[in-house]
Parts: sequence; structure tokens; C-alpha cells
Amino acid sequence: MRDIPAELTFKQRLNACASLIEERLSQWLALSENGAGVPSRLAEAMRHATLGGGKRLRPFLVLESARLCGLADDNAVNAAAALECVHCYSLVHDDLPAMDNDDMRRGRPTVHRAFDEATAILAGDSLLTLAFEIMADPATHPDARIRAELCLGLARAAGRAGMAGGQMLDLEAPGRTLREGDILRLQAMKTGALIGFGCEAGAILGSASHERRQALRRYGAALGQAFQLADDLLDVEGDAAALGKATAKDAEAGKATLVALIGVENARARLRQLEEDARAALAPFGKDAHILAEAASFVTTRSH
Amino acid sequence: MRDIPAELTFKQRLNACASLIEERLSQWLALSENGAGVPSRLAEAMRHATLGGGKRLRPFLVLESARLCGLADDNAVNAAAALECVHCYSLVHDDLPAMDNDDMRRGRPTVHRAFDEATAILAGDSLLTLAFEIMADPATHPDARIRAELCLGLARAAGRAGMAGGQMLDLEAPGRTLREGDILRLQAMKTGALIGFGCEAGAILGSASHERRQALRRYGAALGQAFQLADDLLDVEGDAAALGKATAKDAEAGKATLVALIGVENARARLRQLEEDARAALAPFGKDAHILAEAASFVTTRSH
Repeated sequence: MRDIPAELTFKQRLNACASLIEERLSQWLALSENGAGVPSRLAEAMRHATLGGGKRLRPFLVLESARLCGLADDNAVNAAAALECVHCYSLVHDDLPAMDNDDMRRGRPTVHRAFDEATAILAGDSLLTLAFEIMADPATHPDARIRAELCLGLARAAGRAGMAGGQMLDLEAPGRTLREGDILRLQAMKTGALIGFGCEAGAILGSASHERRQALRRYGAALGQAFQLADDLLDVEGDAAALGKATAKDAEAGKATLVALIGVENARARLRQLEEDARAALAPFGKDAHILAEAASFVTTRSH
Repeated sequence: MRDIPAELTFKQRLNACASLIEERLSQWLALSENGAGVPSRLAEAMRHATLGGGKRLRPFLVLESARLCGLADDNAVNAAAALECVHCYSLVHDDLPAMDNDDMRRGRPTVHRAFDEATAILAGDSLLTLAFEIMADPATHPDARIRAELCLGLARAAGRAGMAGGQMLDLEAPGRTLREGDILRLQAMKTGALIGFGCEAGAILGSASHERRQALRRYGAALGQAFQLADDLLDVEGDAAALGKATAKDAEAGKATLVALIGVENARARLRQLEEDARAALAPFGKDAHILAEAASFVTTRSH
């Protein structure tokens, strides 16, 4: 595998990363070799959940933060693919009838619609488990300390005090009065934790200095908040066709968002500030970080 | 924490291990400290799923195989607790309406009955994730190579080609004609993989020789088969009150078992052979392995 040339623009780099990730996920989820011994229905459901699109923002953050810390893409792509497995598992379970009850995802039937609920539960479980299998695999990094640290960081970001905990808070939100602090906490857990880990993973993989690791954490925290706020704004204003899913679902579901609380104009101003915060956090990397800086703009201005 | 005295009988040792595990799980699942930042409903569901009973056979196997490989209980109890988290997560998800649709477990309401389906899905997800958090935690073993190997082994045993894959095959079984090889494969994945990993985990923790590790693998493979066969026999012959759950559910659900295929008498003979195989595998450990040898008898003769 050749590295993606560094002189690409952000959009080119994002697309190139997406291709790399698609290819690597496809290898891990191959119906032979890596997938030997896996029941075919389960293997197909895992492929349905994982392959065929998505921006691949989280693995992009791993590859790009790793590049800033001196790693070639080839040495970060497994960790990036593992993180995407966690993201995809969370979508499969969040879409279930007992959760958000969504029929469509990225313009295709959700896993429990294309297969059935039991298969979707098991496909999600298996993707989550596969993420740790990949992280702990010697092919992901030759140094076991780094593999163990990646497993620990991923587990904390994905688990009860991270993404899964945030989803629990989200399910409890309808009918409750959430204050700004409550919403920020919910979003930091549900969306921020995994995005933040994606940025930090590059520093872990590259054994970066404390200063650089903290810088990537701060960048990730601002980016995560911006991502969620932009998503909430899209939910209010967006176009269903561009998103490939239903819009204004948050309001229908009675879910409290920051936009509903502080208004669209204030939310836009907050978003601009978060973009600035994200860019400012990248100072220790100088011009090398221009792609992550552009990623902050992309996240705040995306229309889908 | 003091070690459990080595001169205990098997039953005393099993009970003492169960207490150790209950205590350690309770610490990991504490509503404060370790559980800080966890939504309380999720934390309570995870405790409901994990605490308050069960034989704790899998963590017992970790502690006992670790002891054979030179480790004090205190240095194996985290890994044992992590394995139990995976077992408990699998029960929570298997009990869901879309899966086995069970209302009772260990004489108490299942998690989705005591809470709700969404909470049960998230509690299971969070327990699975917590298992890897514990395995990767430096407190579990000071050597990162061992932590990474534990994560890798656990992921392979629990995932698509292990326990989760076995559950998929089990769900597909009704209405299919399964031959003996199919049933053995299903059971090796669904039940055997986690039991086998429990036995091997002690060898990993203790950096045991190849010979000793292989011996524990062979023991685990025989024990896992025996465990499942005994379970199937109990399902046919057992007493609902002693089991704390419904019996003859396999037949009702149209699930193929080895007992249905080869008959009760042949199954009993097979069970005796598996017990002998398990005991024979322990030869490299001599008399030190008498507790695991008794465990093989316990598994083949248990009534609940």
C-alpha cells in the first residue's frame, strides 16, 4: 500500500482516506481468510453495516493525527479501521426499533431492516468486538504498550462513560428539562468521546510528546462539539435528500438540542468559535496541520 | 486482598472464587469512583446484569489456571472479572425479545424486563466494552504484552468466529437439519470459545510454557463440550426449580441438540469420555491440578 501524497487538499485527503479505510475494512470483513469460520449471514450483516460509504471522518482523524505525529498511513490504517467499526456498531444498535427505530441509513435499509433484529444486535456486538481484535493485533502496531493503550482508550471512549453512556442519556432526554450543561455533557459523551479518541489515537500511535497529545485532545474536543452542533443545525435546517435520512427528527422525538435552547443565530456564532478553538489548538504543529485545520471548517460548514 | 488458601476442596474454592469475583465486579461497577460519569440507569442495569449470583465458572477457570501457572489470585482477578463481564453481556443480549425472549434469569427478571429493551442493549454493549477496558488496564497485569494478548484472545473468543458467531448459528438452527459436526461447531463457538479462553487466560497471565498452555487449551476444549452436553441433558431431564429458568425450551424452540441427535444414553457416555479427556489433559500439572480435575466432574454431574 502506498501512502497518500501529503500535498493533497483537504477534500482529496478525506476522499483518499475513505478509500483506504473502505479497502482495509473490506479485508477485515472478507468472507474468506479473516472471516473464516464466521456464519455467512453474520458476515454479510457486518459488511452491510460497515462497507459502502460514509464520510469516514473518525478514521480520517486517526490517519491525519498519526501523520502529524510522524506515522505513515500504512501504520495507522488498522487503528483507524477499528475506530470505524465502533462507529458502525453504534449506528446499527442506535437504529434498532427499541432505540431510534430508523429504517434508512446512508440511503440504504438499516441492518435490522435488511436482515432482522437479532442479526443486527449480533452484527453490532461483533463489530464492537472486532474493533478490539484489530486494536490488539500485532499488525496494528509492533509495540504492545501502544496496542494496550489503544484498547484502553477506545474502551473508555466507547463505553458507559463515553459513547454508550451518551446514548443512554439521549434516550432519557425526551420529557426531561435539560440545561445547557446537561446537553453539552450528553453530546461530549455520545459524539465527542469517539471523535476525541480518533484525534488522540494518532498521538498514541506516534508516541507523541505530552504537549502534542494535549493539543490533539483539545482539537478533538472542539471538533466534536462543532460536529454535533452542526448536526443539530442541519436537523433544523437541512434538506432530507442531502442527508439521506429524515430531518427534524430531534424535534419530533422531543430531544433537547443546543440549537433549541440557545437559538439558531447563537448556535451559528458558537460554531464559528468552536472552529477557531479547533484551529488554535493545532498551533504546536504549525503549517503541517493545515489539513486538520481545514477539517474544522469542513465540519462546521458541511451540508451533509 | 488475601489469596484463597490452596488446600480448599473444589466446592470451597469455587465458592471462594465466586466471592472474590462478586467483590471485584462490584468495585468496577460501583456507582461512584469507577462508575463516575456513568448515567445512573445504565449503571444500575449493568449491576443488575452482573452482580448477585451465578456460579462464576468462567472466572473460576481463569483464577485456577492462573494459580497453576504461578499467579496469586490477586494478580488474575481483574482478567477473571473481565471475562465474566463478557459472559453477562451475552446473557443480556441473548435474553432480548428479538433473540431468545426470556423473562427470567437466575430467578430474577432479565434486564430488559427489569428496565427496558434499549437499556438492556446499552447495558450489554457497555459490559462488553468494559471487559476490554479492564483487560487493557495496567492494574490487570504490569506487562503490556500480556494485556494486549488478553485483549486479542478475548476478542477472538467473544466475536464473530466465537461466541457471537455461535449465537448466530443457534438462531438459524430452528428448521435446519444440523448434523453432528454442525452442532459441535455451533457449541464450540457459542459456549466453548469463552470457556476455553478462560482456561488459556491463566497461561497467558502466567507466561506459561507452550506445553502447559496447550494442556490448558485441551482441558478447556473438553470442559466446554462437557458443559454444553450437560446443559442439553439438563434441558431434557432437569427440574425447572433447580435451574431457575424454563426447561425443555430447546425442544420447544426447535433447536437441535446433540442429545436429540444421539440419544440420552449415548450423550451420557460421551459426557463421561469428555470428563476423562479433560482430566487427562491436566497431566503436565500433576497433583496441583486436582481442583480443575474436580471441576470437570462438577461440570459433568451438575444439576443446576
